[in-house]
Amino acid sequence: MNAPIANPNRWWQAVLAPRCVAVIGASDSPDKVGGRPLRYMQRFGFNGRIFPINPTRAEVQGIKAFPSLRDTPERPELAIVAVPAANALSAVQDCAERGVEVVVVLTSGFGEVGTDGRAVQDDIVATARGAGMRIIGPNTQGVANFGNGTIASFATLFSEIEPGDGPVGIVSQSGAMSVVPYAHLRRAGIGVRYAHATGNEADVTVADLAASVLDDPDIRLLMLYMENIENPAALAAVAARAHARDVPVLALKSGRSKRGAAAASSHTGALVSEDRVVDAFLRQNGILRVDDMHGLVNAAGLFLSGQRSRGRRLAVVSNSGASCVMAADLAETHGLDMPDVEDATREALAAVLPSFATPNNPLDLTGALLSQSGLFGEALDALAGSDMADQLLISLPNAGAGYDVQGFIEAARSYGRRTGAAVAVTTPNPSTADAFRKGGIAAFDHDSHAIAALAQLARWNELEIESASPVQIENIKMPPLPAEAGGGQAYASEWTSLSFLQACGMPVPRMRLCRTPDEARQAFDGLTAPLVAKGCSPDVPHKSEYGLVRLGIASSDDAEQAVRVMLQRMEDLGVRSEGVILAEMHKADVELLLGGRYDEKFGPVITIGAGGKYVEALDDVAVLVAPFSRAAARDALNSLRIAPLFGALRGDPPIDVESIVDMMMRLAAIMLKAGPAVASVDLNPVLAPRGGAAVVADALIEYAKER
Amino acid sequence: MNAPIANPNRWWQAVLAPRCVAVIGASDSPDKVGGRPLRYMQRFGFNGRIFPINPTRAEVQGIKAFPSLRDTPERPELAIVAVPAANALSAVQDCAERGVEVVVVLTSGFGEVGTDGRAVQDDIVATARGAGMRIIGPNTQGVANFGNGTIASFATLFSEIEPGDGPVGIVSQSGAMSVVPYAHLRRAGIGVRYAHATGNEADVTVADLAASVLDDPDIRLLMLYMENIENPAALAAVAARAHARDVPVLALKSGRSKRGAAAASSHTGALVSEDRVVDAFLRQNGILRVDDMHGLVNAAGLFLSGQRSRGRRLAVVSNSGASCVMAADLAETHGLDMPDVEDATREALAAVLPSFATPNNPLDLTGALLSQSGLFGEALDALAGSDMADQLLISLPNAGAGYDVQGFIEAARSYGRRTGAAVAVTTPNPSTADAFRKGGIAAFDHDSHAIAALAQLARWNELEIESASPVQIENIKMPPLPAEAGGGQAYASEWTSLSFLQACGMPVPRMRLCRTPDEARQAFDGLTAPLVAKGCSPDVPHKSEYGLVRLGIASSDDAEQAVRVMLQRMEDLGVRSEGVILAEMHKADVELLLGGRYDEKFGPVITIGAGGKYVEALDDVAVLVAPFSRAAARDALNSLRIAPLFGALRGDPPIDVESIVDMMMRLAAIMLKAGPAVASVDLNPVLAPRGGAAVVADALIEYAKER
Repeated sequence: MNAPIANPNRWWQAVLAPRCVAVIGASDSPDKVGGRPLRYMQRFGFNGRIFPINPTRAEVQGIKAFPSLRDTPERPELAIVAVPAANALSAVQDCAERGVEVVVVLTSGFGEVGTDGRAVQDDIVATARGAGMRIIGPNTQGVANFGNGTIASFATLFSEIEPGDGPVGIVSQSGAMSVVPYAHLRRAGIGVRYAHATGNEADVTVADLAASVLDDPDIRLLMLYMENIENPAALAAVAARAHARDVPVLALKSGRSKRGAAAASSHTGALVSEDRVVDAFLRQNGILRVDDMHGLVNAAGLFLSGQRSRGRRLAVVSNSGASCVMAADLAETHGLDMPDVEDATREALAAVLPSFATPNNPLDLTGALLSQSGLFGEALDALAGSDMADQLLISLPNAGAGYDVQGFIEAARSYGRRTGAAVAVTTPNPSTADAFRKGGIAAFDHDSHAIAALAQLARWNELEIESASPVQIENIKMPPLPAEAGGGQAYASEWTSLSFLQACGMPVPRMRLCRTPDEARQAFDGLTAPLVAKGCSPDVPHKSEYGLVRLGIASSDDAEQAVRVMLQRMEDLGVRSEGVILAEMHKADVELLLGGRYDEKFGPVITIGAGGKYVEALDDVAVLVAPFSRAAARDALNSLRIAPLFGALRGDPPIDVESIVDMMMRLAAIMLKAGPAVASVDLNPVLAPRGGAAVVADALIEYAKER
Repeated sequence: MNAPIANPNRWWQAVLAPRCVAVIGASDSPDKVGGRPLRYMQRFGFNGRIFPINPTRAEVQGIKAFPSLRDTPERPELAIVAVPAANALSAVQDCAERGVEVVVVLTSGFGEVGTDGRAVQDDIVATARGAGMRIIGPNTQGVANFGNGTIASFATLFSEIEPGDGPVGIVSQSGAMSVVPYAHLRRAGIGVRYAHATGNEADVTVADLAASVLDDPDIRLLMLYMENIENPAALAAVAARAHARDVPVLALKSGRSKRGAAAASSHTGALVSEDRVVDAFLRQNGILRVDDMHGLVNAAGLFLSGQRSRGRRLAVVSNSGASCVMAADLAETHGLDMPDVEDATREALAAVLPSFATPNNPLDLTGALLSQSGLFGEALDALAGSDMADQLLISLPNAGAGYDVQGFIEAARSYGRRTGAAVAVTTPNPSTADAFRKGGIAAFDHDSHAIAALAQLARWNELEIESASPVQIENIKMPPLPAEAGGGQAYASEWTSLSFLQACGMPVPRMRLCRTPDEARQAFDGLTAPLVAKGCSPDVPHKSEYGLVRLGIASSDDAEQAVRVMLQRMEDLGVRSEGVILAEMHKADVELLLGGRYDEKFGPVITIGAGGKYVEALDDVAVLVAPFSRAAARDALNSLRIAPLFGALRGDPPIDVESIVDMMMRLAAIMLKAGPAVASVDLNPVLAPRGGAAVVADALIEYAKER
């Protein structure tokens, strides 16, 4: 009875372009969940056949209805389920039997409401999998394709704000966040083709639907909303595909704050990953993360204008000195550079500007523009003579009646064509803004919004380059993990940790393990004082709190006594003792921490940060998901707040940044080779002297607990 | 011939409510500078008499014209000058003769274009002062009072966006920035009474016109745009008055960035003060500084709703789980707290919520709201039962058809009345937003904008409290400044500096000045090693670069040798020598810098920051304008990035923060007493140990250069 699915890799054709759609639980009221899809499909131009399923009515919203799915004259590829939760499983079973390819389950009351609902949801998925059928939802507002009127959604906003087909695709875990961007884009006159929500993601995820959207050659901008990332690999594949097509992917991943993450967990039931890891994952895969809804939609017009930006150099032209001042402030806030005008350009500008205007960047055309409209085009021509900018902001607080707005638009377009720079305009004047938009130039209400958008454009280009730069995995010779690994023991002792890392090629201080006080004297003679003594026990990962660290050992007697005391202390504590390390002390102009942690979803995660005793209070860390490129490692290191201390300062030589990058690459390689067996590696402090290579002073390897 | 001015303290009545207005250089074209004021006054309801002055026409824009000011039948209180720059001075002279009270000089080409223009501008001011007349401008777009139609302005936007009288006053140095907020507010349906620009501020400044606006009892919100602050005292008086009337004052002070400051200098010709000082001044005087134009206008609806906020506790209610997650993220970004729901409230909520919803803050009413509209009011009633929040955000991404929006509005208003909390709503749905606005509740397009506005509301309340808390001036016994002061010598030696500060009550290490190597041995015996030796010369303010600092002196021999070497070195350098300090070394768990600097506009400015050798690279400082309260000093200290290190950490005692606050108060008192004679005082490092009081390790007093 089941017809074969045409192409299981393109299952989404069934949901995005079905010939026949069944609505199970179809309602005559267009404001009910089971009524809206019927209403919307009729209203928004769906050309296929619709089969309302309703055992009590012959007709629903003017369409012939059928008592059950079995009675439909054709097999629907897509079915929409809008029945009460108690009947949903049986509806899905009917679909499986009838050979439906995709079911959108609008009904709620499943995984999101507790264990019982979760069990039914699992049954729904099992039924679908058994039939080779896909499930969207349950508990979803639905999916919508305004390209052909397939609106399997009950979103209220589609009746409040008129749809218009266009080059934007929206895919959201949340129903609300699938339509809020729709609302903002539509109000800005931008067409939206897809507004999809995945709901509980029992089967189909945001990454799956995003892949389907990218399959559509008309889509030129993709927006995602997520609360958790269930399948990083699938999302990474989407991002790679988007870059290949130059379709910018913007993602709003909420749950950044502690309370936000808690709210997300209670909303989706999913465990939310540490935000820094999510951030690193998105960045490394070239997905442009935004902080809020405004950031998601603000630059849409600019991205869709087709303009791209090769860099962060911004030129600003305005007829208001105040706008010039503010644009310069905002450029700094958003990390754009404002280069000086070159001498030749300066001369060209001086030739056209009024005598009292200064040929600077930002360029103030002054109020003279009101009486000399031609000034605008002449100034832009002069600017276009040099490759000084990747982006041009035209800020026109004064515009409208009395100004040659059409002439400005022509000049702006010509500047863009000649220089390849991206051009945006700011004006509070609605008619001027509309005119620029009609001329193909993105217009903004506020300079801050325009500059934020230009910064996103530049960021998209950087992400393109960064995510394309090949990751490297250091070629290390790693000895087998110490025998304790997997034996249920949580930590390796410091000696075991340091020895293992040294064998992997990590720089550690010269050191000896002393098992008796006598060995201490011998060890002292082989090392260069001052030394540090550290008692080693796998049972005492944090030694200093137990008096198992002593610094500044300067004599053989000192060394002997320190070792004696620590051996005794470990005996008194009743912990296993491996002996006492005597190690050479290193100078630290900067103390760092370098950490590795195995994340269940994202794999090995490497952390670099300000180190020492008070790391939590300092809270100055950057995170990378392994593997990564050396450039990414260097960028992470240089993103720290303490980074300005790394350079040559006041006559002192710089920190050897590359030696730290080496360590980061090496630790990533270790974590990748070790896999889940090593839960974490903590190197703190890593001592970085001015004018020398960094060295690991302290190390702690934590094994995975038995699973 | 001159009629006396009614009340010179209320000169602005002449510009804001004149009975007669003359337009010198009146034009028949309503799009010319000299034509627009005529057109606008006729169109926007000006009730007084208008005298166009034009020697060649009998009538201008339908109004009887006069060949010169002398010929007008009445004395105009206000004159608008729109003649070419070459004729402006003579027009102002005519005004002075005729007894005009205020002249708005729209003409440009004066101080902003160079020295020659500046000279004419000075003549204009001198003419006005001689006649007791005030000048607005020159080079101003003009002033506008939509309360009575006095529009002495040529702003294009008034013809593009219909005016509407209302409770907002805008005063701006820039013409463009006087009308851009007007445009945004009017487009949001908010009434604007005043849109004033001060232009070159040859006479009347932003602070002057702001005082005039506050004189109007109908004004409930004041917005300022400034590029420099010429007269801090006048602006402080405006702020105090605004707080007394509870009229929020928001200020956009541009030129924050280096390039922005440079652009501002070239725009207004004024020297722009260091931004941190401006920031401190505005904060300490209770003016709410915003970063950009959006920040200036975004919260207007909320401020004008009359709601105020006593604190930063935010409750969030939504029918979207995603909005809940994002609101929690945004609350953290904007420094709002989201308290937990108390147990009693939790029970009350549980009684009304669907079983699968959780009574948390943020509160997700879930999609159940579509079928149970009453849920909204019941949940708000339950929340109103406890004093848990100062602010409520209602986020409704799903709203409109099918929802009881009027019921929601009633419930929101009732919540506000019962709790005294401020209430704002977010919805992308224009009709829902309008309905809330009509119900007196500020509505926003984006959660981020709503939360930013609520944070401004809370900030206004904090500024009210902070700016009202009395400043303190430590009662110090200050010896006369050392004799060198004012003698043309730039620096006091370290010994002189430290001795002076010690006499003022500042904690400094125990120390001795040694003029011979022999004195070193004696000094060593009277002090506790280890010591530091520092060669003292007023000619060598930065000693370490010249080998005039040695740390860790542990023996009498060491001390003798160090003093000998340094005395010799100063002789070799050919600099004046006061001797060598031997001082006890102190432990520093945190190194700070404490600085004082005399600012020409703002007076003594105190800086606290992360200290040590690399202060520039650390760039972690906070600034206060003296005098200030102890609370302000403590807040500044605690705003540093290193502040998390001050507390008790990992078993170590805290830094003695109050001892550092003492030093800040004392330095402020010294700088206030010394006045401009002391250009700067630099205490770096100040050593702050855990578990002990801080001490000044190094000090440098710089005298004012001869003026």
